[in-house]
Amino acid sequence: MKSTYYTVVRGYELDSFGHLNNAVYLNYAEQAKWEFLNENKLLETVQEYGLFPVIMENNIRYMHEFRLLDKVRIETDWSCTRSILHFTHTFFNDFTGLKSCRITGKLMFADINRMIFDIPDELYDFIQEEKH
Amino acid sequence: MKSTYYTVVRGYELDSFGHLNNAVYLNYAEQAKWEFLNENKLLETVQEYGLFPVIMENNIRYMHEFRLLDKVRIETDWSCTRSILHFTHTFFNDFTGLKSCRITGKLMFADINRMIFDIPDELYDFIQEEKH
Amino acid sequence: MKSTYYTVVRGYELDSFGHLNNAVYLNYAEQAKWEFLNENKLLETVQEYGLFPVIMENNIRYMHEFRLLDKVRIETDWSCTRSILHFTHTFFNDFTGLKSCRITGKLMFADINRMIFDIPDELYDFIQEEKH
Amino acid sequence: MKSTYYTVVRGYELDSFGHLNNAVYLNYAEQAKWEFLNENKLLETVQEYGLFPVIMENNIRYMHEFRLLDKVRIETDWSCTRSILHFTHTFFNDFTGLKSCRITGKLMFADINRMIFDIPDELYDFIQEEKH
Repeated sequence: MKSTYYTVVRGYELDSFGHLNNAVYLNYAEQAKWEFLNENKLLETVQEYGLFPVIMENNIRYMHEFRLLDKVRIETDWSCTRSILHFTHTFFNDFTGLKSCRITGKLMFADINRMIFDIPDELYDFIQEEKH
Repeated sequence: MKSTYYTVVRGYELDSFGHLNNAVYLNYAEQAKWEFLNENKLLETVQEYGLFPVIMENNIRYMHEFRLLDKVRIETDWSCTRSILHFTHTFFNDFTGLKSCRITGKLMFADINRMIFDIPDELYDFIQEEKH
Repeated sequence: MKSTYYTVVRGYELDSFGHLNNAVYLNYAEQAKWEFLNENKLLETVQEYGLFPVIMENNIRYMHEFRLLDKVRIETDWSCTRSILHFTHTFFNDFTGLKSCRITGKLMFADINRMIFDIPDELYDFIQEEKH
Repeated sequence: MKSTYYTVVRGYELDSFGHLNNAVYLNYAEQAKWEFLNENKLLETVQEYGLFPVIMENNIRYMHEFRLLDKVRIETDWSCTRSILHFTHTFFNDFTGLKSCRITGKLMFADINRMIFDIPDELYDFIQEEKH
C-alpha cells in the first residue's frame, strides 16, 4: 500500500544553518499519516473507535537538505500485522528529484486510557487488500 | 564521555493525545547537544571555525510517554571518529525514574557552504580524553 | 495590495484541547509572508539585498478555533511607508467560511548585522502601485 | 498578582536570521502560564473542573532579539474579572537586563465541549487576594 503527500518548506521550519531542522521531518511524516487516513476515510474510523496512533519507532536517514520553499514529496509504503503498522516514508525534493530522507518506523493504536488495541479492521483490510 | 541535560515538558509540546509529541524528542535531543557544547566552552570553538552540526541519522525508540510538566533527564553518551560524532541520548522521567526513550545517531560538521570538515580538534580531544 | 495563502491544519499543531495552538497562527502568518514575497519574485530581491524581515508587532484576535485538517484561507492586506511594512492577516475556515482570526502588525528590514534599512524599492513600488 | 518564569533560548527555536522566531514568544508565554498555575496548585483545580484555558487575544511588541542560549526572564502581571483572565508578560534578557518583549492578552476557560465557564473560584480568589 502506497500513498503520497506534498508539502512546502516553511520559513520558520528552517534553523540557523538555513535548512530544514532535523525534527521537522517527523512533523511532515506525521502529517503524511493523518492525510493518508483522512483521504481514505479511515481517520473517522480510528476516531470512532476512540483510538490514537502511538509511534513506537522512528529511524531517520538524512541525505540531502531542504531549503526555504522547496517542494517536498513524501512517498509512503505501508504494511501491517494485526497490531503494528509499519511505515517507510521516502522524502524527495520535488524540484530536483533528489531523494532527501528516509524514515522507517512503526506505530500501534491506543485509547485515551493508554490501552493498546489491534489495528481497526477497516484499516487492516485496506492495507492488506492493496497488497494484491 | 557523558553529559546530562534537564528540561520540563511544556504544554504546547503535547499533542491531542495529551502526551509529548514524537518529534519534540528530537528538539530536546538537539538542545542537549547545544548545552553540552556550551558548558564545555566548545560552542564558541565550533562557531569560530564557522561550523554547524549536521545530523545524519536519528534512531528513536519510544518506551514511555511524557506528560505536561514532567521533568525530563537526558543522559548522553558521546564518541567520535575524526569526522563523525556519535551520540546516544537516553531519556528518563526524573519523577518516576522510568526510561522513556532512546535516540542513537550521528552528525558531521559543515561550513555555511555545505563543505564537510573534520571534527574540530578541541572537541575531538575533549571526547577522546574523557574515555580514559 | 492583497494576497491569499492556503494551508491545512496539521495534527502536531493541535494542542491537548484538540485545536490549533495559539502560537501556530503566527507560523501561518509568517509563511503567508514568505509565499507572498516569493510569488511576486520579491523574495529574491530581499535576499539579494541581504535583508531579513524583522517583526516589530503582532496583534492577534482569536475568533473561532481550527481543528485537525481544517482548510485555512488567509487573506492579507499590505501597506507600507518607506521603512515599515504593515500587514493584516484575516484567517477564514475555508470549509465553513467563518472568520477565525485576525492578526495586524508591522515589520522592518534588517541586514545580518542588525542594521535597519528602508523597504527595498521593488517591494515598496509593488505595494504602492497595487493601491491604484 | 505577579509571577516569574525562566527559560533558555534553544537552538531549534532560532530562525534563519539567527534569532528567536517571533512565534516562539507565544510558546514561552504559554509555558509561563502553565507553570504559574502548577506552582500555585491551581493546575489541578483547573483540570478537576475539566477546563482548558482558551486564548482570546495576544498583543506582542518585540523590542530586542534573543539569541542562542540567552537566558529569558518573564515577569507576568495577572488580573481578572469573573470570566476573563488578563495577563501581561514582560520578557527580559536575564544576562543584559534588557527588556526584550511585552505581550498583553486575555483568556477564558472552556470545557471540552467548548462551553465557556467562569474562572474557577480558587484561581479567582488567588488573583484577587494578592492584590491587597
